[in-house]
Amino acid sequence: MSDLEFLFHPRSIAIVGTPSDPGDMSGGSAFLHALTRSGYEGDIWPVNPKASEIMGLKSHPDLMSLPQAPDYVICCLPASLTAQFIRDCGAKGVKAVCMFTAGFSEATEEGRKLEEELVGLARQGGVRLIGPNCMGIYCPGTGLSYYSESSKEAGGVGFVCQSGGNSSHLVLMGGDRGIRFSKVISYGNAADLNEADFLEYLTQDVETEIIVVYIEGVRDGRRFLKALAAAAKAKLVIMVKGGRTEAGTRAASSHTGALASSKERWDALCRQTGAVQVSTLEEVVDLIEAALYMKPPKGRRVGIVGWGGGASVTSTDACEAAGLVIPSFSGELRQELRRLSSGPGSSVGNPVDSPVVTDPSLLSKAMRIVANSNEVDLLLMHMPFAVPSAADSEWRRLHRETVIGTSRSLDIPIAMVQPHGATPESSAIFSVLQQRCIEAGIPTYSTATQAAGAISRFIQYHMWRSRE
Amino acid sequence: MSDLEFLFHPRSIAIVGTPSDPGDMSGGSAFLHALTRSGYEGDIWPVNPKASEIMGLKSHPDLMSLPQAPDYVICCLPASLTAQFIRDCGAKGVKAVCMFTAGFSEATEEGRKLEEELVGLARQGGVRLIGPNCMGIYCPGTGLSYYSESSKEAGGVGFVCQSGGNSSHLVLMGGDRGIRFSKVISYGNAADLNEADFLEYLTQDVETEIIVVYIEGVRDGRRFLKALAAAAKAKLVIMVKGGRTEAGTRAASSHTGALASSKERWDALCRQTGAVQVSTLEEVVDLIEAALYMKPPKGRRVGIVGWGGGASVTSTDACEAAGLVIPSFSGELRQELRRLSSGPGSSVGNPVDSPVVTDPSLLSKAMRIVANSNEVDLLLMHMPFAVPSAADSEWRRLHRETVIGTSRSLDIPIAMVQPHGATPESSAIFSVLQQRCIEAGIPTYSTATQAAGAISRFIQYHMWRSRE
Repeated sequence: MSDLEFLFHPRSIAIVGTPSDPGDMSGGSAFLHALTRSGYEGDIWPVNPKASEIMGLKSHPDLMSLPQAPDYVICCLPASLTAQFIRDCGAKGVKAVCMFTAGFSEATEEGRKLEEELVGLARQGGVRLIGPNCMGIYCPGTGLSYYSESSKEAGGVGFVCQSGGNSSHLVLMGGDRGIRFSKVISYGNAADLNEADFLEYLTQDVETEIIVVYIEGVRDGRRFLKALAAAAKAKLVIMVKGGRTEAGTRAASSHTGALASSKERWDALCRQTGAVQVSTLEEVVDLIEAALYMKPPKGRRVGIVGWGGGASVTSTDACEAAGLVIPSFSGELRQELRRLSSGPGSSVGNPVDSPVVTDPSLLSKAMRIVANSNEVDLLLMHMPFAVPSAADSEWRRLHRETVIGTSRSLDIPIAMVQPHGATPESSAIFSVLQQRCIEAGIPTYSTATQAAGAISRFIQYHMWRSRE
Repeated sequence: MSDLEFLFHPRSIAIVGTPSDPGDMSGGSAFLHALTRSGYEGDIWPVNPKASEIMGLKSHPDLMSLPQAPDYVICCLPASLTAQFIRDCGAKGVKAVCMFTAGFSEATEEGRKLEEELVGLARQGGVRLIGPNCMGIYCPGTGLSYYSESSKEAGGVGFVCQSGGNSSHLVLMGGDRGIRFSKVISYGNAADLNEADFLEYLTQDVETEIIVVYIEGVRDGRRFLKALAAAAKAKLVIMVKGGRTEAGTRAASSHTGALASSKERWDALCRQTGAVQVSTLEEVVDLIEAALYMKPPKGRRVGIVGWGGGASVTSTDACEAAGLVIPSFSGELRQELRRLSSGPGSSVGNPVDSPVVTDPSLLSKAMRIVANSNEVDLLLMHMPFAVPSAADSEWRRLHRETVIGTSRSLDIPIAMVQPHGATPESSAIFSVLQQRCIEAGIPTYSTATQAAGAISRFIQYHMWRSRE
């Protein structure tokens, strides 16, 4: 197993090929912006043959003239200069290079040969390569970053991602939903260090609780299978395969030079190892939210409590379509619920859609009755809190806090569906609700489909673990 | 065919069972709030035996003491009083009743009998019933409304909806994305007027271009099949079946007393008639957006142009999974694209992911080259415009206007994917972008999965129509 710890704690970083014009937002400048914004406290050394200062930092003409060997070097040079650059790294004593430069095995046969040559030169010089054609490492704990929008706060999610853009997208989307990352590695063409190396690293990394993998193609299938099995045994591993379709595979090949592997083989790989496969980055975020904030349900039986008959029906359909079970409540349980309210519009058979839901004290009682019944393993609440009528804000607050307060005394986990509109106003209401719910350990989703998918996969993972 | 035009143009509305306390937000008050907010200009007559004025409007003690027969009566009385109420309606000369009251066939056997009795009484008295257990009609053209958040603007989407809550949810969600409605009917238990009546009405209604149907169960299968076939022949019909699963069917039964029908039968019904079936209200909005704003593509071949290799791969996967085709570009077309930029990171085979995308003038050229190639039937653009970095706002504007400006001169339609975060800031950026794109006839989606699903269904519909 490679010990890659040294990659994540650089005391100095050189950006070779930083444009001298800070307005030029191509590679080198973007890295420089990200590092200065992320609060990186080590030395940053821009390297540019023609500038003496870039963005207030002393610039050096070349790698060799740096005061010492930087711990991490980001290479933004044209591909034609990279062979000499790697030789220089070896001579200077550089141990870690993130090669942003593209135009290698993903592009042409000539590029493939150059990539092979770089790996050979790196091995000779004792240099480890991330990439080429990648963004490298985001590690908020040490301020290492390649994306200026990424959070400075560290958290428990590690991400091995073959695509730089997708890595930033997950960090951004997840960040908006309270998800923080331990280490994110965008590794591109994987010429030297590859998906298995990083997966092995995150498996033993104590700062990482959940591992996400976005992968377009695997360099060494057997080693990857082994690494994935070990990772999934230790932690929740969420897998997105880029290039699941024929055209997608073609796109992946010209993106990172990824080799094709059939969807069926990939599905089998995940089933066999216990990695949880999802189709989109949005589904990744949904599942992380369940895993981070929710106690694992003991089974698949869901009690649905909410507001609105139509929403009850569509939530039920979404849950059952996702493989969850909505058991019909026993006569005793129905009777108990009916004692709270027997008025018209009362459905107490599961889903529970009843006037009680609009009365906070009855809502709290109904939640307790269902949760204590032993007839379900979790509660799914659907509440239309995010309606932008200002008149409703106190009503919203009261109901929200009732759900949160009640949830603390329940023995089973709860999740929330909060439909909302697309306007900033609706989103703002949803954001506040989601924030409060997340703090209280209640994962919160915009749609029942999202909630059901995430919860079902979360349960699938825990059932798999308990069988292991 | 029932001529239901009279339902949508009431010159006077009575709300029987309006609470005297305007803070009481149960049935009657909610209708009153909605009507006063919606700009309804006819007479509104609250009816309450104990009040002389409610919310500044003269209140009458009972239906019989109203100055004349109201054109539309909303009944919020307890179920036990409804038989006498219907008799009174007949005596007064009321032609249209929306019965909000619940507790009928959806609740108990006794309720089922009472519902039957009401229908008999209504027929005797010459009264047509919507419901019971429903919200009735939203018709912005005449200010008729039951939901205070609904838009005052009218548009081309008609909606026959068995659930009041789901109808409001679609109006709200759609409204946020520029979708306006002609007539929405929440019809509940369908004791008298049913889904077929309303579907027939919307089929011949000149104000309705697109028909959405949310249905939990059908009263008369044969008649509904005929109505659906005629509707789908005339207009795009989008169908959501509530209660597609076993538990969902049970929920539907206690929501609107809906009778079970198998998922397979329902799927066949849609295939046979050409109604486009989707699973969720979110998918309804996505499809409406394509249908309203986009010229119909001539086939399923998509050219993908965008920013980011990973996003190219995931967009391609999403399109192909949804049944779209991402053809590999011809050598000539690749050559033409490569002339714009042959630098590293250039993929020109479809998807097009290339440095050209970051340069507005090259982006415009690339769009034109792909659109004029005859190798694709539509363009799908994916651009990370909604990143909340303030420094990017001018860049965003420039790219957005480039895409919009270029789209006007293309012979094939285009659609846009704009990933964004969940914060109000991200949503605000997305909202502006979406608004501008929609105005320019470019449907805009948050994810490639949404875009691909909507576009594929839109094409499916047009292919079905052209075969008919």
